[in-house]
This record gives sequence, structure tokens and C-alpha cells, in this order.
Amino acid sequence: MSIRVGIVGISGFGGGEALRLIANHPSFELVYAAGDSSAGSRLMDRFPGVPAKLTELVIQKWNPDSLPELDVLFASLPTGASADALARVSERVKIVDIGGDHRYADGWAYGLADIWPAQIERQNRVANPGCFPAASLTALAPLLANKLIQPGNIVIDAKTGISGAGRGGESKFGYAESNENLAPYGLLEHVHLPEIAKTIERLSGGSAAGLVLTAHLVPMTRGILATIYCRGHATTGQCVEAARDFYARRGFVRVVDAPPQTKWATGSNLAFVSYAADPKRNLVIAMGVVDNLGKGAAGHAVQNANLICGLPETTGLEGAPIWP
Amino acid sequence: MSIRVGIVGISGFGGGEALRLIANHPSFELVYAAGDSSAGSRLMDRFPGVPAKLTELVIQKWNPDSLPELDVLFASLPTGASADALARVSERVKIVDIGGDHRYADGWAYGLADIWPAQIERQNRVANPGCFPAASLTALAPLLANKLIQPGNIVIDAKTGISGAGRGGESKFGYAESNENLAPYGLLEHVHLPEIAKTIERLSGGSAAGLVLTAHLVPMTRGILATIYCRGHATTGQCVEAARDFYARRGFVRVVDAPPQTKWATGSNLAFVSYAADPKRNLVIAMGVVDNLGKGAAGHAVQNANLICGLPETTGLEGAPIWP
Amino acid sequence: MSIRVGIVGISGFGGGEALRLIANHPSFELVYAAGDSSAGSRLMDRFPGVPAKLTELVIQKWNPDSLPELDVLFASLPTGASADALARVSERVKIVDIGGDHRYADGWAYGLADIWPAQIERQNRVANPGCFPAASLTALAPLLANKLIQPGNIVIDAKTGISGAGRGGESKFGYAESNENLAPYGLLEHVHLPEIAKTIERLSGGSAAGLVLTAHLVPMTRGILATIYCRGHATTGQCVEAARDFYARRGFVRVVDAPPQTKWATGSNLAFVSYAADPKRNLVIAMGVVDNLGKGAAGHAVQNANLICGLPETTGLEGAPIWP
Amino acid sequence: MSIRVGIVGISGFGGGEALRLIANHPSFELVYAAGDSSAGSRLMDRFPGVPAKLTELVIQKWNPDSLPELDVLFASLPTGASADALARVSERVKIVDIGGDHRYADGWAYGLADIWPAQIERQNRVANPGCFPAASLTALAPLLANKLIQPGNIVIDAKTGISGAGRGGESKFGYAESNENLAPYGLLEHVHLPEIAKTIERLSGGSAAGLVLTAHLVPMTRGILATIYCRGHATTGQCVEAARDFYARRGFVRVVDAPPQTKWATGSNLAFVSYAADPKRNLVIAMGVVDNLGKGAAGHAVQNANLICGLPETTGLEGAPIWP
Repeated sequence: MSIRVGIVGISGFGGGEALRLIANHPSFELVYAAGDSSAGSRLMDRFPGVPAKLTELVIQKWNPDSLPELDVLFASLPTGASADALARVSERVKIVDIGGDHRYADGWAYGLADIWPAQIERQNRVANPGCFPAASLTALAPLLANKLIQPGNIVIDAKTGISGAGRGGESKFGYAESNENLAPYGLLEHVHLPEIAKTIERLSGGSAAGLVLTAHLVPMTRGILATIYCRGHATTGQCVEAARDFYARRGFVRVVDAPPQTKWATGSNLAFVSYAADPKRNLVIAMGVVDNLGKGAAGHAVQNANLICGLPETTGLEGAPIWP
Repeated sequence: MSIRVGIVGISGFGGGEALRLIANHPSFELVYAAGDSSAGSRLMDRFPGVPAKLTELVIQKWNPDSLPELDVLFASLPTGASADALARVSERVKIVDIGGDHRYADGWAYGLADIWPAQIERQNRVANPGCFPAASLTALAPLLANKLIQPGNIVIDAKTGISGAGRGGESKFGYAESNENLAPYGLLEHVHLPEIAKTIERLSGGSAAGLVLTAHLVPMTRGILATIYCRGHATTGQCVEAARDFYARRGFVRVVDAPPQTKWATGSNLAFVSYAADPKRNLVIAMGVVDNLGKGAAGHAVQNANLICGLPETTGLEGAPIWP
Repeated sequence: MSIRVGIVGISGFGGGEALRLIANHPSFELVYAAGDSSAGSRLMDRFPGVPAKLTELVIQKWNPDSLPELDVLFASLPTGASADALARVSERVKIVDIGGDHRYADGWAYGLADIWPAQIERQNRVANPGCFPAASLTALAPLLANKLIQPGNIVIDAKTGISGAGRGGESKFGYAESNENLAPYGLLEHVHLPEIAKTIERLSGGSAAGLVLTAHLVPMTRGILATIYCRGHATTGQCVEAARDFYARRGFVRVVDAPPQTKWATGSNLAFVSYAADPKRNLVIAMGVVDNLGKGAAGHAVQNANLICGLPETTGLEGAPIWP
Repeated sequence: MSIRVGIVGISGFGGGEALRLIANHPSFELVYAAGDSSAGSRLMDRFPGVPAKLTELVIQKWNPDSLPELDVLFASLPTGASADALARVSERVKIVDIGGDHRYADGWAYGLADIWPAQIERQNRVANPGCFPAASLTALAPLLANKLIQPGNIVIDAKTGISGAGRGGESKFGYAESNENLAPYGLLEHVHLPEIAKTIERLSGGSAAGLVLTAHLVPMTRGILATIYCRGHATTGQCVEAARDFYARRGFVRVVDAPPQTKWATGSNLAFVSYAADPKRNLVIAMGVVDNLGKGAAGHAVQNANLICGLPETTGLEGAPIWP
């Protein structure tokens, strides 16, 4: 029996990736797609390669008050645009919010699916983690849970592909200006900082007061790497072992020996984590790699939707990354 | 019941893409992978994101005389390297040769699967078309079959992503030299010219003596666009209609109105064709887009393997392209 | 004695490149910069690496009626925006219009500086050629002037880096959508077609009625390659010899044996031309490479400004291309 | 009067950039170029855009025992390849070693030209700093000299374009594998770590024992950004002021308010430094940007050569960065 799903925010990169994954999902049937700039178009006008069964579906103007009958709604709206609208959606529709408005909000489960799957199963409202939190926290969680690092002294140097900046038309994200350019931003006050700090505290029981997060735009379309500098006296082996134990029953997190590269995850819902420690320098380097549109957005959202629908979490997400 | 398949040439880009597609195929089970530089490694050492069921498979040294029991072998070897070796493989093993040694060779079907599927079904030896032929001929076939253009006066200006040059270590294909660079090559004597000429003649019944093929390396990883300048008095509408009829029962070819872009096909087995004609200038421009590793190599090969195994041709190839 | 120059359209890519070249020019002194979005900023706010002598120059709101005392004005405005405004500029100010409004307009010399320098010297109003014309015509001129090809049967397959699309904020020129994408456009009616046709007729004395120009956006910032398919019975050697003679006294055009690559010209005012002919196929392939912002825009404009000011044409343009 | 200079290692990226800068230098005359793979070629065969005066210069096989009469030799050889050979070069020839063999070696001045120019002037043997040291130390020096940060607790997260990996033919630096990929390397033991540690100690007088340097390959050709996490209670304003004072008389270092982007420096010898501090978190973030082939290699080398020849340090290096 198929599960009826909808996507709102189909014009953006997160919505488009959700479409790709849902189109390939054996239990989900896409019956509703809504967008803003694209309303009135058929899916094939916007996504020329969409599977044949979906080519003629017409994109609707987003209106939370007149939805068709849905089991699950994926919301991929700009930050600030979804809180009011999603409050009007019937309780009978389960929602996974890929956007940023409901993380750590009342009534919403925080959907860090590889770490707390049991708290997500059968929930009705799930807030998908941000892309930097997904990459960073997946690498940090085993260290924090095992007290191998200090929670109050963490420096995250995060790098993201440019699709992470969204699909706006700003000139600074234009090809000619972004190509061959590496640009730091959000230095002392990145928007994802509070979400990461809260989760560090939830994982460790300690304060994350000294947390630093710096973001960098890298001239590539997809991919996030978080290089995380921590204080602690664990060895590399202890970190790896802790991570292998922590993720022993999870299908999407791979603990690897070599430093992970972003291309390893492209197009998939995988996360790669790796560690390099030097007790003499009181140093643990944790690294996390995800596809910012996969585990960093739509892939994670489908995983959360699987959990809330009672499906195996890997359903529809088994595809290998695209390489090269 | 699963079909036992093997890949030889796993280290190259074509072999790697075959791995990705086979790993996701519902009827194929990968039981054998052979390579040269990678022999002795586990698949996960070379492909960190390979699905869990395949991570531990060990890459073998290629030896056609000691193969395990196989139903289908995908061969992705450099040109010149496969003729002798594949002749030694048992007739009980069906072969799809992604390499260039058996196109229009005795005893081998020419695997242009969207045009002559009936001649491929149930065959035992199939030569996969080259990447430029796949892009060009898919666009040209409806025009030639309907005599809308002259077969003897065709100019193909082809552009390929750099993975089309193979995975060698030549400095000129290094990132710093290839990036931000566009380079023509193979001007008057491209290696794919005879294959295209023969197929034009097979499709049209006329001579392709004046055929011109120019190739260009474009600074992107994947994708081929063939812009083809033909002589004929058809209108754009007549070309489009001919193509829609010609491909009416084919799942992978999309006839579109706008000029096709390479990103539309990335990661998929789709081909996009489009036409723009000006009878006053005696001009028909045909355009064909494929992913050079998809319809231009491994996707086409899996489609051919489906045909020779009696499966629906789209099995395992339904995934939408990756965007952006 | 320094020549006082101004730039209008400083915010765009053409204006920015003009700034770079003028800042390095031994006889030009930049005393005026005007822009639209950038008015009120200092040059260093927009161009953090501008030479020290210019960092504090404030960008003005463009007003043709209140210019400072200038000897030369470089205009780099969007097509359609300059005709009226430039008509109001005093005759005492020489103008080089990098934009498209005055090519083959009354009262304006057509500034194809490597072909007709004598017609540009000491002129007061010069229209800089378009970027595709610069690349195409430099390759074609020796063949046309020597009647080695037919003027009425020329197919230009042109490829440009994305800075050629200008610095607008359209989403389709955004990094994530343009990267790893190759897109044809302007198929039967490219805006540069009439300019090229007129120049072919001026060079050959024959009709260019059958001219075809197809443009392609290539995922790189700078560079143009025109691959041009012509009919004629000349040999490669005859074409090369004709070009070497034609450009014997020109400093910026290099006639080379191998197919030219766009990176060879990046950052310079050079043009590379090359030929490959096959008399048996009645075929001459001409290739031209320029930097679309160099010889295709600002470099050519500075060359024209040198000519109209009576300076050696290479003044300030001797810098070698940047590689890699 | 012209200064006779030579380059050994002309085939590599550092040597090629030295060629570009020297060709444009008003006082240097290139009379000798040596390479390995390129010996016997004319410069124009390897560098099609080289200025006309140099096109016919023939590249020699490198032999330190039979050099022509030279005033300055630029050596750009792989690490390990230059120590013995350069020892055989006559003392009458001044040497700037762009390679890594002589940094902090006996008899060689350490050429950090924006910080210790007086110790370089009129020297005979100068070791050019590494590319990561150039970016990092330029940002750190004012903080260390003014004791605004602790020298023993510095974390450098460095990112470099791929030309920084040299011009080898390794498959992993091939376009298809490097493009759309971000890869950390050299995690706990980067080759540049000792050079940076020694210079931190020289600048601060304290121990750099806790220094961490992580490098990342970014999919772009040129550019380095070092994001540096330091401990200290200075404010952003104090750091900026210290840097403005420190570099008040230097022409190549720009202290900016916004986070610097790599494209700002491309093709130039500029360095951009910026600071963001939060005393509450005991945190100072210092950022340094250079072109790895400019201030990170050949630009810095020409600056050093100017100093040892008694020329103004900016001679031949005034060109603005290329943008976009």
C-alpha cells in the first residue's frame, strides 16, 4: 500500500532533491508538489529528467489550507516562512520540516535520525537537522557520549558546497564570482550555532559555551566537510572504536580510517566520520562528511519520513553515491 | 532468481559507474570484480560508499581463463586490451563490452539499444556504442530514417566532460590544467568517426562520406552534448514529430523543445534530443545530450544486459538524474 | 603626459576588466568611474585588490551630462542602455563603446583592431566588437580575404565562459545550476549574427546569407572558442600560411599548429587561430580562441583606445596570460 | 641596466608563474630557462602566450655546473631535489629558492619579505617561504608581535587550490576526481608545520608546541585561505589596529574588515588579512588569503629578488588581481 506524500518548496534545491528521492522510493507516491515561482508548471518543465510517472504532475501554488489528502508532507521553505503555514496543516498529515523553523521547537521531534531514531519513530512532526549540524554532530556524538572530549571547547571549521546557500539569484552566488573562489562567512554568529550547541549539551550533559563555528563556501555544488578541533586525551584508536560501537546498528554512518572526502557521499544519504588524535597535544580532530542535500537535507528527511511511517529507515535510500 | 554478473575494469570510470548501477539493480548480483591497479583491495577501499552488501568483495586480478560462474560479464577495458582476452571467455557467459574493440566486429551485436533493441535481445555478445556515437546517433536516427536530412553532409561538433578521457594520470588531464580550459581535439580523424559513419549508412541507406566529427574537452566531470549541423529542408516541427514517433515506445529518449543541457541527464541513462531547423538556410540543427558514463557507457551497458537477459530494458535504471 | 580616462559600467565584468587593464597602463590615468549599483562606494570596496593609487576613488552615479574633464571614456553598459546617453557626451571626449549599441552604427568606427587598425587610428567614436565576433572573425578573416573559403556557407559553433552572460543575478547563472552543465542557446537567431555577417561580407565581398551561429555556455569563468566549419578546397598549410601573412605585423594574433585552448589566452589580449582542412571533404575548420573579457571586451577596448590616442597598440597590454 | 635572470623548474606551476612575472618585469631579463620534461622545447611550445621577446628561448636540461652568466637564479624544484644541485651554483649568482629545501637552512635567509625585509636585502641566498606559511604567518605576525594571542595554542585550518599539489600526473589530482571534491590531508604531520612553528617562535619568543595545521584540497586552481583559531582576549578592533600598524609601510598586505576571499588575490602578490575576535570566548580568529602561486610562491620570490637586487620591492608586481 503506497503512502501519499507531498512536497512544498519544490523549486529549491532541497525540494528538488526530495523529489528525486521520493520518485525512486518504493512505498511513497508523490501526489502533491507546491512551489512559488514554479506554480502552474508541470514537473517535467522544471525537472526534464523526472521519471515518466511524474512528468505531468502540475505544481500547485502553496496553500496550507487546501491540501489534498496526504500522509506525509515534506516542507522545504526558507527560514521564517514555514512556522505559521505549517501550523495550519491538519494533524492527520505527518510533517518533516527540512527548513530551519522548528528545530528544538515545542511539539517537534528533533530528527537527528542516526543518533536518536527511537525518539523519531511514529512521531507526527519532525524537524530535520541543518546541514552543518548533520555533518558536525554525527562526527562528535560518539566522542561526547563517551566523554572523550570536552564539550565546552569545540571549534568547528565547516566547508560547504554552494547549493547550501540556496537557489537565490544573488550575484555573489553567480558562477563567475563563486567559481575559483573560497569565502568564509558567518564567523562569530552562524545561524546553526545554537542548534549545534543544544545538541552538544544534550549529548554530553555539559555546557557548550565555548563553541565556535566558522563556515566557508567552497566552489563545488554539493558536499559538506566539518573539520572539528577538540580538546581531550583520547587516542585515534579510542575515538574510532567509540564511533564503531556507537554506530554499530546504523546503516548510513561509515567510520573510516582515512580523512573523508566530500565526493564519497555525493548523491547519497551516507555520512562519513573519521578521527585523528594526538594526546600529547591534548588534541582530537573529528571529521564529518555528508552531501548537504542528502544527509544534510532531503536524504535525512526521507530517512525521518521512513521512521515516522514505520518503514525500515533505509527504504529508498540504498543508492550508492555518484562517482566521479 | 538473481543473475550473476561480473565487471572487469572496475578501476576505471566506466567500470565504477557499472558498479553503482549493478549494486542498485534488483535482478543482478555482483559476484566478481576485476581490475588491474586495484587487484587485492576490497570494494570499499576503492569505493567508500558502496552498498553494505558489497563492501567486502575483493577485487581480483583479471584473468579470462579463471572466471567464477557468471551469467553476464561487463567489460570496461582500454581500447585494444579486450579483443584477445574476451575471446577466451566461455560462451556460457554473456558479455557486454563497454570498451571499443568490438563495435561492428563479427559475432558481436551493435548495442544501440534505443534504436535496434530487437537485434540485441537474447544475444550473447553485445558491443556497447561509444559515448559520442550514443549522443549523436540518438539525435540523428529519426532524421535519417525519415530522410529529413542528407546523410552525406553532416557536421558533428561534440563536447564531453573530462571523465570521457578516462582515468589516466596524464598531467594534461590534471585539475589545474583542465579547469577553466576548453580544448578541441581529434579534429579530422576522431576514433569514433567510423562507428558513426557506419551507423549513419545503416540508418539512411546512403553514404556518410562527408561526415565531420570534432571533439572538445569541457571542464566538467560528466556529460556530452553533440550539436549537429545537417542539410535538409525540414521544419523544426517535422523533426520533432519524426523523433516523437521514432521513440514513442522507448523509455530513455526524451524529445524536448528547448536546447538540452548536459545536467539534465547526469547520473541517469536518459538521452535528450532537440531540433532547430531553418528551411530557408537548408539547415537542420540536431542536438543530443547524454551522461557519457550513463547512456554513453555503463547505463547503456546495463540496458543492453537487461535486453540480453530478457528483462524489461528499464530495470534498475529508473533513477532520476541528480540535480543540481 | 598622462591621458585622462573614465569608465562607465564599472560594476560589470567588462568594466572591471577595463579597470584592471587601465590601472596597469603607463599612459592612462583613471580619473572617473561610474556605476549603478556601486555608486558611492570606493573602488577598494568593490575591488579589494585594486592598486594603491586607486583605492580611494569614489564610484559616481553615471550622468553623461556632468562628466569631469576626460580624454577617453570606456563605456560598458548593457545593450540598449548606451545609445541615448553616449550621444550626450561632448565630442571632445573620445569614446570606446564596449557594449553592443554602436556596432555598424553611423558615426562609429567598427573597432576590429587586428584587422582594420588604420580605420580606427585617431577616430573619436569606436564601437568595440562583440566577444563571439572577435573570436570568429579573427580566425575567418585571412581565409575570406584570400578567398580560401565560401563566404555564404559558414557554420560557427561558439562556446563561451559564463562571464560572457554578464553579471546579472539570474538563478540560471547561479553556481549550482551552471557548474557541471553545458547549455546551448541562441540557436537560430543569436544577437551577434548580424555583426558577424556584415563583417564577413566586408571581408569577402560576397554574401553571408547562409551563416549559422550557435552559442554554448561552458562551465568556466572566462574564455571563448569558436569552432568554424567552412567549405573550400584549401589545404591546412595554405590556410596557415595565409593567416601568418595576414597577421605578420600584428602583435596580438598567434597562428598556431595545434588546436588552441581557451586557457592559453586567459587574462591577456591575445587571440589564437588555427586551421585543419581536408580538401577531399571540401572542408576547412577554422578555430579562434580569445578571453571573452580580454580580446572579447576590455583588452580589445584598450587596444582601440591606444589606436585612437596615437599610442602603440600594445601599450599596457603586454602581460602574459595567467596559467594555470 | 637589466638584471640577467634564470629559472630552473620551468615546467612546474611555480616556475611557470615565475616566467609570467619575470617576462613583465622592467628590470629583469630572462636569459635561461631549464626544465626536465620540457628540455629542448622553445618557451612558446610550452607557454603559447609568452611575450614575443621570449617565444624562441630554448629550455635547457638543468645542469648547475654549466650555467650561463646570471645575476639571479629562481629555483623551483621538487622538495629534496635542490639542496645538492644549488650548492654547486657559483656564489656570484644570487639564488631565490622557491622549493622547500632551504627554509631555516644554514647560509640561507628566510624570505618572509613582508615581515623581515631588512634581513633579506642584499642577501645572496634566500629561501622563499612555503605557501601555507605565507598565508598563515602574514595573518599571525601582528598578533604574535603584539602578544595578543598565545603562541602555544594555535590551530590553523588551511585550504588550498589544487595547483598547490604540484603538476604531477597522479590520478587523484585528475580533473574528474578532484572536481566537486574537498579533501583533507596531512592531518597531524603536515610538511609545513616545522617552518610555521619556528617562525611563530621567532615572532613571539614563546613555544609553539601546541601548533596544529590541517590542510584541505579545494576544487579550484589557485588560492589559499588559512582560518586560524587562537586563544587571547583581544578585541577585533585591537587585532585590526595592530595589523594596520604592523604593515603600515608594506605594499602587499591589506588589512580588511570583511572575511577575505581567495579570488581577491588571484594572479597578484597581495595578501589579505582579517580578524574576528570574541573576548568572552577567549577567541581570536585570524584569516589570511594569498594566491598560492603568487605570494605563496613566484610572486613572493620576485619580491625577494627585488630586495636582494636593491630594487623597490614592488617592481614588476604592481598588477591588479584578475577578476572574476
